[in-house]
Amino acid sequence: MSILPALSARHVDHRSYPVGVAYMDGQYLPMAEAKISILDYGFLHSDATYDVAHVWKGNFFRLDDHLERFCRGMEQLHMSVPYDKEQMREILHNCVALSGLKDAYVEFICTRGTSPTFSRDPRDAENRFIAFAIPFGSVANEEQQKRGLNLAVTDILRIPPASLDPTVKNYHWLDMVRALYAGYAIEADSAVLVDQEGNLSEGPGFNIFVVRDGEILTPKGSVLHGITRQTIFDICSGQDIRCEQQSIPVDALKAADEVFITSTAGGVMAVTRLGGQAVGDGMIGTITQRITKCYWDMHTDARYASTVRYPDIA
Amino acid sequence: MSILPALSARHVDHRSYPVGVAYMDGQYLPMAEAKISILDYGFLHSDATYDVAHVWKGNFFRLDDHLERFCRGMEQLHMSVPYDKEQMREILHNCVALSGLKDAYVEFICTRGTSPTFSRDPRDAENRFIAFAIPFGSVANEEQQKRGLNLAVTDILRIPPASLDPTVKNYHWLDMVRALYAGYAIEADSAVLVDQEGNLSEGPGFNIFVVRDGEILTPKGSVLHGITRQTIFDICSGQDIRCEQQSIPVDALKAADEVFITSTAGGVMAVTRLGGQAVGDGMIGTITQRITKCYWDMHTDARYASTVRYPDIA
Repeated sequence: MSILPALSARHVDHRSYPVGVAYMDGQYLPMAEAKISILDYGFLHSDATYDVAHVWKGNFFRLDDHLERFCRGMEQLHMSVPYDKEQMREILHNCVALSGLKDAYVEFICTRGTSPTFSRDPRDAENRFIAFAIPFGSVANEEQQKRGLNLAVTDILRIPPASLDPTVKNYHWLDMVRALYAGYAIEADSAVLVDQEGNLSEGPGFNIFVVRDGEILTPKGSVLHGITRQTIFDICSGQDIRCEQQSIPVDALKAADEVFITSTAGGVMAVTRLGGQAVGDGMIGTITQRITKCYWDMHTDARYASTVRYPDIA
Repeated sequence: MSILPALSARHVDHRSYPVGVAYMDGQYLPMAEAKISILDYGFLHSDATYDVAHVWKGNFFRLDDHLERFCRGMEQLHMSVPYDKEQMREILHNCVALSGLKDAYVEFICTRGTSPTFSRDPRDAENRFIAFAIPFGSVANEEQQKRGLNLAVTDILRIPPASLDPTVKNYHWLDMVRALYAGYAIEADSAVLVDQEGNLSEGPGFNIFVVRDGEILTPKGSVLHGITRQTIFDICSGQDIRCEQQSIPVDALKAADEVFITSTAGGVMAVTRLGGQAVGDGMIGTITQRITKCYWDMHTDARYASTVRYPDIA
């Protein structure tokens, strides 16, 4: 008869995590200590909403817009947390200031949480707010940003709005992960999915934009209303570039002069190949470059920037 | 100028969790200690697969079938863990034995995990295996099981197979949660969703069966191939009851003599009302009762049962 192993008092985690600071349950914690119960329905049912803001050279960018979208998502999922927008803003600023990171990726999350009885009724659960700041990250790595991305165009269906409102930012990513592996199989860097009509949708963490004859299009339905996507509309409006949201057949990509993607994680990123085939002349286009410059210039504009107050240490 | 809050060395969690034992990273832990990093992509991207088996009166039921489905899911998601089926079986047995629970809900999970750099490429992540045993739980509470469930029939689309293979058991539940809240709004106990043709699909944690004129139907596509669902096929085959999987229009529910749902969490559960309207005469039907009895009788059948060896303590 075999002898049972012993029960340990505390979990020992051998993995390493990025630097940064998280907030949970009233505490600010190093990232390696930021852990949630495996029984939290944010994990077990992906019953959660979230948002990601970023800090660039010590300034948050459009934080209010992210907070507003986040609160709208919580409301739609019947969730609430004991913090108002002002308090959440303070928590996010504190995470970044404590981390000392001048360029940061700042995520905030509301999970369904748990109930002591592990009740299956989501109304019984105590919702949970989590926030964290880690080093700024990007959908595209440095090399990919320099040469432009090679994007796979898949026929994988983005989870449709009839199942899930795509404007409530959520963690339902297995369709995206499937698209990524389909992309890797043809040596692409990332991948884009389609909507129920077979039109372009979005990809893992990004919205897509198609440039032709000096005009820009981006998918309208079945996509997250990205804050960076909104920023592109704002830039184009100021630059007198026509930019519309509408249904875009996948075939429109073939005729594109330029393609780029947008994400809080990376900003504006050029796509220079689609499934290995060059977009236009295969170089990062002039409109993409112009918009990218405007995007980074906006980061010091007082209308969008809020400055982190770091502790006075050398 | 405000003073920054202090960084805490360790997370203090004020919440209470059910009793039970979890396994992670080589350790067996009390449930309250079983926590994963908030950076694990199993959480942040719901990039995970799982299975749930149960122990009834000291016996696992059809554990091999659950393990097989789980391993198939891992393979499809390009995941692997450093345990073979035999080792996983031992871990699950140990969790239950250590917990002392004679009736247990036993979940095992593979998450994408993390990489030290928080890389967005899922191939860079170290996958993570987690298992836990907590007290047996059910989709329906005791009162609901006694009177039969009141199920809302919604037009919410179950995430379609073109997005996500429903036979890979996954945590993409926000459509289910949406259906639950729609159900609660009309005082139902739970809810069922539809597939892309508007036919019946499944509900939060269960498959559905419709009985008419002594014959049983259950949806074919857009559903998890539940182990309890398979058990119903096996029972019906032994009992000479015709039971088929096929597309079922939602309207077929109106003509049903009996309706029941199945889940590892609860077994066979009668549905006696649909959106408040009685199914048949509103009582738990004879076929549902007969199948329920067969289901529990199978739990001591050596072909399906594997006995947990609990430590010899009073």
